[in-house]
Parts: sequence; C-alpha cells; structure tokens
Amino acid sequence: MRVMIIGASGTLGRAVEKRLSSTHEIIRVGRHQGDFQVDLCDNNSIRMLFSRCGAVDAIIATTGSVSFGPFSGMTEANFREGLNDKLMGQVQLVMTGAAYLNRGGSFTLTSGILAQHTIPHGVNATTVNAALEGFVLAVAGELPPGIRINIVSPTLLIESEDSYGAYFGDVNRVPASQAAAAYQFSIEGDETGKIYRVW
Amino acid sequence: MRVMIIGASGTLGRAVEKRLSSTHEIIRVGRHQGDFQVDLCDNNSIRMLFSRCGAVDAIIATTGSVSFGPFSGMTEANFREGLNDKLMGQVQLVMTGAAYLNRGGSFTLTSGILAQHTIPHGVNATTVNAALEGFVLAVAGELPPGIRINIVSPTLLIESEDSYGAYFGDVNRVPASQAAAAYQFSIEGDETGKIYRVW
Repeated sequence: MRVMIIGASGTLGRAVEKRLSSTHEIIRVGRHQGDFQVDLCDNNSIRMLFSRCGAVDAIIATTGSVSFGPFSGMTEANFREGLNDKLMGQVQLVMTGAAYLNRGGSFTLTSGILAQHTIPHGVNATTVNAALEGFVLAVAGELPPGIRINIVSPTLLIESEDSYGAYFGDVNRVPASQAAAAYQFSIEGDETGKIYRVW
Repeated sequence: MRVMIIGASGTLGRAVEKRLSSTHEIIRVGRHQGDFQVDLCDNNSIRMLFSRCGAVDAIIATTGSVSFGPFSGMTEANFREGLNDKLMGQVQLVMTGAAYLNRGGSFTLTSGILAQHTIPHGVNATTVNAALEGFVLAVAGELPPGIRINIVSPTLLIESEDSYGAYFGDVNRVPASQAAAAYQFSIEGDETGKIYRVW
C-alpha cells in the first residue's frame, strides 16, 4: 500500500514508519519536516499536499497538540488552541483527504488515554480526545463507500516520559512500537469506526 | 436555592423551570429572552450577566446548537459553528461562571444521546456532545473546592419531534419533564463529574 504518515518525524510517527516500511511504501509528512509538508489547520495546504502526492491507500495522522495546564489559569484562547490543532486538524484532514483515498482506503487518527482517564491539568486533552473519538464513531457511517476510519488511543509512551511523565502519575506506559501495531492493524484490516486502545 | 437557567425559554429550559420553580428561586436567562440576556460565546457578556445577577447556587445550561447535515457537504465553517456554540459556549460559561457560584454550588450542562449513538447527518452533534462529556469528567477535579459539575444527556424530546424527529429514526423519545428531573437531581445532590443519561 501507499501509506501517508502525517507527523512522521514525531515519536509515534517514527515507530509507525519503522513498523510499516518493510511492507508498504511510506510517504513522510510533517509540519516542517518529512518528504512533504502540511498545515492541517489550512485546507488549502491539505489540498496542495495531495495534489503533489496523488492518491494513497492509507492516511495515518500521528500529530496534533493540546493545551496542558490548570483549568483555573486557562483562557478561552488556550482552550481553543487544542481544539484547533489536534481536533480540527484531524477533522479537516478527513474532510479534504477523503477525495484522495483509493477505494478500500482508510484513515487512522490519534486520540489518547485521556479521552477516558482524567488527570490534573488535562481538561483540554480530555475534551479534545473525547471529541475525536466521537467524530470517528459518527463519520465512519458517512464516508464514501469503501473508505474506512479508525482511531488509535495510546497511553503515555515510554519515549515521551521526559516531556509528559509528570502529568500522568502512575498511569501505565507502553513503548511506541506497541502503539504502532494498532495503526498497522487499522490499515491492513477491514474494520471501521473503531477505537484501538493501547494502554 | 438561587438557580440560573440559561436557555430558559427553550423546550428543555421551560420544563426545568416548571419542575424547580415551586421550591427554588429561578433566574431565567436567554440569548434574546428571559429576565437577563447573555451570549455564551462572549466572555464579557457572561461577566456582565453575573455582575447584574450576583452569585447563584446553581447554573443550569439548556442551550447550544450544533450543525446537522451530511458530512460530505459540511465545510470547516459549518463544523466550527457547533464547536463554537454548544461546546465553547458551555466551556466559557464554566470558565467565567465558577467565580459567581456560592460554595456548594453546581453547574449542570447539557450534551445529548448522540454523544454515543450515531445517526446520519449527526457527525458534528456526536463530536460536540462527546467533547462536552469529556470536559465535564475532567473539569470536575479542577473546579474550586465545593463546586460541582454534572451533565445531562437527553435523548430526543417528544416535544422536539417536529424539528428533529426525521434525523433520529426510531430512537426512544422522552418527555422534557423526564429530562428535567435529571437537572433537579444534579443541583440537589452531592455528585460531581457525572453524566445523567435520560434515554
């Protein structure tokens, strides 16, 4: 398959690439790095990406940031940053990218354990991840025939301990390679509208 | 208790007012109607509302619209409308309103059955309602001591059949009076971070 990984230079993206690259053709996409660049908050940028790459068989998004911090100090703008980046970035990818998926193709998006497990300073993360899971459940029934969509919800990655470990307390960690297996399962399988939890 | 109902002139708001008005003091708030007006998308408008009304013991939001329609015809702007109105309206109400709740006070927000049950044309509704339920689960642990928050998730109301019945297929309907009981339970109880499903 021709597999596009958006967020390919990140911790998760690199693990997904490593897992898939021996059996699939990988197109590495990033905000600033990779074979191609895209800004998922800009529909023109998404269209430009696909006009350069052409159609693909699978689109994997391992990208998107949320706003961590105490709710009492959070502004409307802070809260909207996470909605704009991780939620609307992936929503717009699906809106615009569906036209560039070959028949039988799939989207695999990324949420996270905070969709269900709440932690201090994680209000925005929980809101955004829960929204993404709702989006995937609902949009699965409205994509063009033969196009599938799933979402992977990883717990904190062992490789991300230094950046986010302090927020997550004693929540179980997994290696990025374990999360990567869920993306492979999504693109090679026949399921749609599923949440793959890797906790 | 002094109970503020935002969306008081709507189908659900009127049922909540009817249920509570014999035992509580009700402050009716609407976008254009009621004792006071507010635009929940404008923090200044929210602050102005509370500066006029003073502190209250319970804030109930039975308001917020989402974008219904086929995903294939939905634009980014359509999708953002629901996020801005029903999601960010209630998020901003909590951000700004928490300072005006008396100790022991509570928020009760509104999501809806589409958070879990998906229907054609309901992608935006599912995304927004799922986000709201995530928000309540997470923010319950970060509100000032003694301040509670819950959310009521009604199915389609019998009274809303003419407006939304065609979207909902044979999903079970309930009368608004039944949903109203959940709001009473939320403000008079001691729970926080709970989703009350009225299906």
